[in-house]
Amino acid sequence: MKQVIVVNEALALPRGKLAAQVAHAAVDAFTEASVTLQKRWFAQGMPKIILKAESEQELLQLENLARKAGLPVALIRDAGHTVVEAGTLTCLGIGPASAEAIDAITGHLKLVK
Amino acid sequence: MKQVIVVNEALALPRGKLAAQVAHAAVDAFTEASVTLQKRWFAQGMPKIILKAESEQELLQLENLARKAGLPVALIRDAGHTVVEAGTLTCLGIGPASAEAIDAITGHLKLVK
Repeated sequence: MKQVIVVNEALALPRGKLAAQVAHAAVDAFTEASVTLQKRWFAQGMPKIILKAESEQELLQLENLARKAGLPVALIRDAGHTVVEAGTLTCLGIGPASAEAIDAITGHLKLVK
Repeated sequence: MKQVIVVNEALALPRGKLAAQVAHAAVDAFTEASVTLQKRWFAQGMPKIILKAESEQELLQLENLARKAGLPVALIRDAGHTVVEAGTLTCLGIGPASAEAIDAITGHLKLVK
């Protein structure tokens, strides 16, 4: 079980802003998951991986694949109060779900360091 | 309504690591909140603020105050697989709760930029 948050690194968000957007995706995708998936993920320590995408288009393609696979998904648009333009896609949360199901979609992406 | 994540900035965590720890705190504190608080916070767009602390001690003091105030709290210790020593306190999630109740505890802290 894991949860993956894919970040739009084209925005090069500063640390605090990135953390807030990733947290938003994590909570939102979590609430899309069944209670069974939520509990299994909790029992395993809520593993969470932060991965890179290079554009809004890439986030949208990944979202499409994740939805087709029936996984919990949350696509996050920034409210645009501060750093980026309103409505900009900042990140995509997928899961909690089985690591295999998620890796089939995001396994080729690199970690955000 | 808001949720605040206070980060141990003494660790100077890199972006991806920070985001994962903050997301951990956000989900964990969220699950500590009542369904009523969860729903109110959702209805307001899940506002989330990332703030700085300078040490583990400061996180523990804030945690203590938040627990005494009866707020949802999650103190996050890193599993220590990668960047920091196992058991290091990385961040503290408080809320969702009323902005007033949270500000009474964290209102003096600065934003992580």
